[in-house]
Amino acid sequence: MTNEKKKTGGTKTAKSTGRKKAPENTVKKNSVTARTSRAKSAQKTVSARKKKTVKPSLRIAFLGGLNEIGKNITVFECMGDMIVLDCGMAFPDGDMLGVDMVIPDFTYLEQNADKIKGVVITHGHEDHIGGLPYLLSKMDVPIYGTPLTVGLIANKLREHSHIREAQLISKFAGEHIRLGCFDVELIHVNHSIPDAVGVAIHSPAGTVVHTGDFKIDYTPMSGGMINLSRFAQLGDEGVLALLADSTNAERQGYTPTEQKVADSFDNLFRRARHSRIIIATFASNISRIQQIINCAEKNGRKVAFSGRSMINYMNVAKELGYLRVNDSTIIDIDRLKDYPPEKIVLATTGSQGEPMSALSRMAYSDHRKVEVGAGDFIIISANPIPGNERTVGNVVDELLKRGCEVVYESMYEVHVSGHACSEELKLIHSLVRPKYFIPVHGEQKHLRKHMDIALSLGMQKKNIYVGDIGKVVELNDTAMKEVETVTAGKVFVDGLGVGDVGSIVLRDRKHLGQDGLIIIVASLDVYDGHVISGPDIVSRGFVYVRESGDLMDEIRDMSLEILDNCSKRNIHEWGVIKNRLKDEVARLIVKETGRSPMILPILMEV
Amino acid sequence: MTNEKKKTGGTKTAKSTGRKKAPENTVKKNSVTARTSRAKSAQKTVSARKKKTVKPSLRIAFLGGLNEIGKNITVFECMGDMIVLDCGMAFPDGDMLGVDMVIPDFTYLEQNADKIKGVVITHGHEDHIGGLPYLLSKMDVPIYGTPLTVGLIANKLREHSHIREAQLISKFAGEHIRLGCFDVELIHVNHSIPDAVGVAIHSPAGTVVHTGDFKIDYTPMSGGMINLSRFAQLGDEGVLALLADSTNAERQGYTPTEQKVADSFDNLFRRARHSRIIIATFASNISRIQQIINCAEKNGRKVAFSGRSMINYMNVAKELGYLRVNDSTIIDIDRLKDYPPEKIVLATTGSQGEPMSALSRMAYSDHRKVEVGAGDFIIISANPIPGNERTVGNVVDELLKRGCEVVYESMYEVHVSGHACSEELKLIHSLVRPKYFIPVHGEQKHLRKHMDIALSLGMQKKNIYVGDIGKVVELNDTAMKEVETVTAGKVFVDGLGVGDVGSIVLRDRKHLGQDGLIIIVASLDVYDGHVISGPDIVSRGFVYVRESGDLMDEIRDMSLEILDNCSKRNIHEWGVIKNRLKDEVARLIVKETGRSPMILPILMEV
Repeated sequence: MTNEKKKTGGTKTAKSTGRKKAPENTVKKNSVTARTSRAKSAQKTVSARKKKTVKPSLRIAFLGGLNEIGKNITVFECMGDMIVLDCGMAFPDGDMLGVDMVIPDFTYLEQNADKIKGVVITHGHEDHIGGLPYLLSKMDVPIYGTPLTVGLIANKLREHSHIREAQLISKFAGEHIRLGCFDVELIHVNHSIPDAVGVAIHSPAGTVVHTGDFKIDYTPMSGGMINLSRFAQLGDEGVLALLADSTNAERQGYTPTEQKVADSFDNLFRRARHSRIIIATFASNISRIQQIINCAEKNGRKVAFSGRSMINYMNVAKELGYLRVNDSTIIDIDRLKDYPPEKIVLATTGSQGEPMSALSRMAYSDHRKVEVGAGDFIIISANPIPGNERTVGNVVDELLKRGCEVVYESMYEVHVSGHACSEELKLIHSLVRPKYFIPVHGEQKHLRKHMDIALSLGMQKKNIYVGDIGKVVELNDTAMKEVETVTAGKVFVDGLGVGDVGSIVLRDRKHLGQDGLIIIVASLDVYDGHVISGPDIVSRGFVYVRESGDLMDEIRDMSLEILDNCSKRNIHEWGVIKNRLKDEVARLIVKETGRSPMILPILMEV
Repeated sequence: MTNEKKKTGGTKTAKSTGRKKAPENTVKKNSVTARTSRAKSAQKTVSARKKKTVKPSLRIAFLGGLNEIGKNITVFECMGDMIVLDCGMAFPDGDMLGVDMVIPDFTYLEQNADKIKGVVITHGHEDHIGGLPYLLSKMDVPIYGTPLTVGLIANKLREHSHIREAQLISKFAGEHIRLGCFDVELIHVNHSIPDAVGVAIHSPAGTVVHTGDFKIDYTPMSGGMINLSRFAQLGDEGVLALLADSTNAERQGYTPTEQKVADSFDNLFRRARHSRIIIATFASNISRIQQIINCAEKNGRKVAFSGRSMINYMNVAKELGYLRVNDSTIIDIDRLKDYPPEKIVLATTGSQGEPMSALSRMAYSDHRKVEVGAGDFIIISANPIPGNERTVGNVVDELLKRGCEVVYESMYEVHVSGHACSEELKLIHSLVRPKYFIPVHGEQKHLRKHMDIALSLGMQKKNIYVGDIGKVVELNDTAMKEVETVTAGKVFVDGLGVGDVGSIVLRDRKHLGQDGLIIIVASLDVYDGHVISGPDIVSRGFVYVRESGDLMDEIRDMSLEILDNCSKRNIHEWGVIKNRLKDEVARLIVKETGRSPMILPILMEV
């Protein structure tokens, strides 16, 4: 606490330094990177409030996390210095076929690489750290976070061996990080992973509070409750802007405490006392894994883990002391057979029904080490992320068919969210009492609902900004306004490729995936274009060819006729010939089948 | 009511006729179609209960609606006569790429076409009538249903012009249909479409009650409450088996009355009194459309419709008197501009966020006749079907971004389900008091929950059968048991093709859609196999080719080397050459990109 106060003192010094600068000086310094609008606005401020000391403006650029869930990344800029808060990934939507991961477009950061003083990470979830390896392969910047967060980042970077030694710096909640003109203070919050923080970004322009992902839990599994008192102090000291987590803004009331899950687990362990217990949850939900371990130890069960990502998270958390577990509790999955079923808990990934995950493999009898059936008591300790309801439902159905007992509904309270609901948001707003409010982390509907909450607390609409990625907002004591649009978007990671899959490739994948493919291939004489070989018709994903011989023959005959016809009429432009093949064959196929496969004519000159 | 009683009397006659037959006679008649197990079971029955009059057995074959939502179809067989209850379609799962619709496998019906006396339809929803055009293209059987149901079927058949005149027979709820040894009694139930019925199937083996899709609504929009008194009478008379809707078995309590929606609409119309109102709901939810019309008329607004299927449903319901509407209320969508926004309600399809639906087109500015924005008040009067949450969410976000006000949450009670929740199911079970119970219409989790409900009411587990499609269960006074498995499954409709897309085509579509395609094409000399032309490399959905020239060159060079090598070594088996191309190119691509596109070598002989 002493430490925290001292650092806060440091911040004040920073502030007053900012104030001491003459207005002209400030404008000048700003104008190094200024566009016209910024210079104008600064001048306006100067003339409008001549008698007051004018603070510099702060710019916030949103490169991710607005109008989407995940891929959180925000850039703060003041007096020519930049800092980045979080650098996450997002899961691909259903229409991003074959894409493994979505990361932010880093163009804006690359353009301003020399200004970036550091990246501060609020916690170790993929939607906050998943983009780091890709950012670090473009630039070398120091990364700051709490010890668990830094541990998880280090673990992640080991999988990306091409990244040169990264600068990872651990800071405890309560500590401050000096980055150029910024002083970033880490504030302990509750979330579904330990060691999560919000930040107070003290800058010459004023203090901005960003909650990160958070909820308010008076009785969390570890780490103590969110540092509400610091949020209140900051409110008393004066906060220019609040950026707060909107994920659960639509939900009324409060997110229940993680302790609720402990109670449910206790009951379910009692009910399943003669069964093997299998619990699926998010690999990264270290608090939940702690609960599983606690409950297992209390009931004299061993715990085994299935799923690489869960083992990774568990090992890092254990090494760093964020997971309290007796050495004898954890066993290797290969040793399951050495214990009777009622002495075992198996913690597994796959709570979202992901096709390749451990739980899915168990459900579809495809797991190399675990076979499930009657006598297994399975708890899915997670809610389906929107879009995954169907796959989760299918996994549950398969498990039920195998005779497993499955607990999967929210009515058992085997899962609580990691994000604040509306009443918790009201509490934070009321403590921080910011001049401006910017809802972050959410789709449009969440951002709007969060705006409604701020309005209901008496905030004026002009002091609320609902943004989008690529937008840059500038704020100072006088006003908050959108000033420019910078490059931002979704970059697709597919295998080893980053950004080489774009809209054209996705459009082709969609077409191929929906309707399949017909290839018309022929060798033509180089002189008169007469058909030397073919045309051959090859199809995939269109119809079952063995039962559609007639149609294939028709397509071949038609193609031959078109090629002969072109040759006879001296049409030798291959573009023209190919288009004629495409159009006429497409017409035939639509008439006969009502479908529109991709048609690929390939002509070879011989 | 008199009519109903008379018919019930008729049923009793049928029953007593059944009873009068000598046991030997019954067994003989049955044995015409008997398999060994059935003959044995009949004999056992005879010996075990010699002194009692033995009734024949009833067989129920499930061809759809178990372990799935939709595609409802059940076959009842007794004394050589068969009837079919419902003949629905299902929507494709996400992994059925390009599939438009899923219908039942009709093999078992085709094998027994001579026995089928008729098809009885419980109501006019797609999951109960959608398979009929495909069944009727295979056999000519009479179709029975209530007037609205028959009207909707007739409308549907008009779109399938190849179907010869179908025999469609209207019966009112309360009436009986004599089909061979069966007497099918239609019983009025509540559901999200008017004129829905459950059935009591009176057979020589006893009476089976099938609820169809139902809920209990004491204050429905039209048609009066479900005929609970008839279900109670049947219970008093004795019911052999109950088959009941499991869709909402997981939900506690009662489904609210449709009247709840009327109250919400009243409030929302008041709130939106200065806006244009747009309401999206299921095209088939005629009760909801009635509500929209009522509310519009009360508020002096005109109603326009968008979405072909909604207009179809609306027209049929209006013609047959199931929709009460003033002639002046409904306007064509082209006349929207003739009225001020606050005098208009637009009813539209697209409540599930379907990409091509009217509401989606509005959200993405792709609707030819309606442009939405600030001043539009949009109500989504439906819940997302599991799997559609994401698409619905995206549409909502787009509408919000355009400045529309959107009401989409269940908290406003703008939608109620059409299916009975657990307490309603308990009521039906308790009134009907069947000997056997078979949960139907649901996935495994719904069927299991429905079983739990029956168990909680004191039913014995041996008298409950949780089945699957393809299973045939035989029941009589003594026992219910699974006797055989018949052909059943999912037949895919894709464009005009029925059943020509199977697992191989879907596997290829998935591969193409996820990873794209590389074609290696070359012309080889017919004698020594040396390369005359090519190899050319064509790719789609793999990488953006213009930026991947090096990789394409590498693939071409490697292919040429392999072809030359094969030619030199006198390897002329094309299968061998193609496999070598596939394997080595695949290895190269995985190494370079981490991806596995489909690789198609095409060789031409010149």
